[in-house]
Amino acid sequence: MANHLQQYKLNGFKMKHGGVLNHAILAYETWGVLNKQKDNAILILTGLSADSHAASHDKHETAGWWEYILGDNKAIDTKKWFVICASSLGSCKGTTGPCSPNPLTKLPYKFSFPDLSLEDIANSAYELIQSLGIEQLKCVVGPSMGGMTALALILQHPKATKHMINIASGCHSEPFSTAIRSMQREAILNDVNFNDGNYSSEQWPTQGMKQARKMGMLSYRSASEWKERFPRSLRQRPHKPFGIEFPVEAYLEHHADKFVHQFDPISYLYLSRAMDWFDAYDYAQENESNPFLHVKLDTALIIGAKSDLLFPESQQLEIAQLLNGTNTKAQVNFTDSIQGHDSFLVDKETYSELVKKYLSNL
Amino acid sequence: MANHLQQYKLNGFKMKHGGVLNHAILAYETWGVLNKQKDNAILILTGLSADSHAASHDKHETAGWWEYILGDNKAIDTKKWFVICASSLGSCKGTTGPCSPNPLTKLPYKFSFPDLSLEDIANSAYELIQSLGIEQLKCVVGPSMGGMTALALILQHPKATKHMINIASGCHSEPFSTAIRSMQREAILNDVNFNDGNYSSEQWPTQGMKQARKMGMLSYRSASEWKERFPRSLRQRPHKPFGIEFPVEAYLEHHADKFVHQFDPISYLYLSRAMDWFDAYDYAQENESNPFLHVKLDTALIIGAKSDLLFPESQQLEIAQLLNGTNTKAQVNFTDSIQGHDSFLVDKETYSELVKKYLSNL
Repeated sequence: MANHLQQYKLNGFKMKHGGVLNHAILAYETWGVLNKQKDNAILILTGLSADSHAASHDKHETAGWWEYILGDNKAIDTKKWFVICASSLGSCKGTTGPCSPNPLTKLPYKFSFPDLSLEDIANSAYELIQSLGIEQLKCVVGPSMGGMTALALILQHPKATKHMINIASGCHSEPFSTAIRSMQREAILNDVNFNDGNYSSEQWPTQGMKQARKMGMLSYRSASEWKERFPRSLRQRPHKPFGIEFPVEAYLEHHADKFVHQFDPISYLYLSRAMDWFDAYDYAQENESNPFLHVKLDTALIIGAKSDLLFPESQQLEIAQLLNGTNTKAQVNFTDSIQGHDSFLVDKETYSELVKKYLSNL
Repeated sequence: MANHLQQYKLNGFKMKHGGVLNHAILAYETWGVLNKQKDNAILILTGLSADSHAASHDKHETAGWWEYILGDNKAIDTKKWFVICASSLGSCKGTTGPCSPNPLTKLPYKFSFPDLSLEDIANSAYELIQSLGIEQLKCVVGPSMGGMTALALILQHPKATKHMINIASGCHSEPFSTAIRSMQREAILNDVNFNDGNYSSEQWPTQGMKQARKMGMLSYRSASEWKERFPRSLRQRPHKPFGIEFPVEAYLEHHADKFVHQFDPISYLYLSRAMDWFDAYDYAQENESNPFLHVKLDTALIIGAKSDLLFPESQQLEIAQLLNGTNTKAQVNFTDSIQGHDSFLVDKETYSELVKKYLSNL
């Protein structure tokens, strides 16, 4: 456990699909100061491969995955807000997951880790904020998987937060996105080094993880961005037949190589499947009726990128329309960012402005 | 060689990137009757995984891959036209390719097969039509890879055809499409059973071929079609952890299983790379100038589907605009078909109507 991480201990934590976690840990980081009324807290729920280190802070100066948006005088202004970000349950980034030791056997859980749902991730984060004495969040902020997890939070704990920023997510995964994630999981499972989960750092499912990441990159970015980024004239003859030749291939290879050891393969499988399992409509009283009717949310900002292949505009529109069918006042914004699903990580100016404006009115 | 296939023998056939093919065969089929003037010939150039059997005929009654469009009184009316379709050079469907025996060694070429380009496919088809005494085609029809091959044909043989129907193609592959194809090739190359090309029917790169096909399906269809096709409610618990659970997974698995032995793995690599290599601008006199200036084409019908991820609208528009910058009269039609790149294979009514109308005016 890196010493910049704080720990919350989960005991007797009941998982949605069965099983109980004991002596489990949620690793988290905080920014800013919780005020006396404890009503200035913002919870950030992360994307699949992100961790608690959303931005640099005194105890860990390395830039975080959302560095541009979080900090003093930034869009999520840590002079004003007390911000919490945990590594998702199951993600193994200091937080308990399939590669953590099972306290009963002292051996890594691997596939004996209970089935993981986004509801479990939301519930563990909810326990954490309650343990900090926070009765109600001012706002929950969730991009990508974090956006779905934010929905899982408010659906299960209708008063958990007054406001929500939900970015690049949806009420459930569309078949196209599920297909991509399914192929990513298959690439990992099929790698001979995966060995039914009995891989080691010496026998790592490198190929499968690389393929999974490349398929991810394909779905996270957009065709139009790549068209600008990769001039065809840069093509080079490969060193071996069918080796890397096109600029986009070198780009994918670079990102895949970086990712291989950044994430635990079984954790990836569990989190990826959790995204495909999530369905806000599971909370509807009747088939296809509005699942958010019981939710007590004042306002919501829903953001989508028009270039997002993984969570298309119709999905953000659906969230906004459903919320507006309740007592929540939801606004939806579609950005022209060309970076696809990843726009919230890349198009700093656009997302900073939207988030800053919304939070400044709370 | 199946007895419904006709053969054209290539000798001393020079490949674009070096190498010569001797005793090579182009397998082809024909429909209708060539008239005395030999001016009623239509050549169909195929997509990557298609073969010469575009439609049923007297000698082979099995339905072909474009059955709905080709035949007596159909959009490509074989009562009026003499239609030729060859299995692409390199595709090993009766036609010589990497898994055919090298006449010098009697062993399969495998990676010793010369580098294959779409220009080679176009040139071999051009030799074939000349051998039939056809000086000039009435029309060349090319969907997908066949559309790019049609461009390769007219760029190299400016008078090869009077008219062209070009469907779901582009002047070159965009980085997004190249990325998908690169990952398909990588999946095949990485399969342990691929064994540097030394696979056998007992040790077949099944996994790699399945992955390649699944990635293909992802890019050939569209998110909106799958959304309609796969209701989330059909989800079932899998037989094993992380097994097939979602309807879209079962669909992909089914198509992947069907494909595995339908195509030779090395052929797939060669043809896939040929698509990424092709660039109409290689024929431009100066950088970025119009590559079609020398082409003698009377008219062209360019068709794209708005839902095509692999060859987006902008690419068909580009072909039409470039051709209209010459003496060719090109029209471009975008269909609302939701089946993505594969629309030309599925949306029978729309494509029949467009093709029928165009051909009836020739």
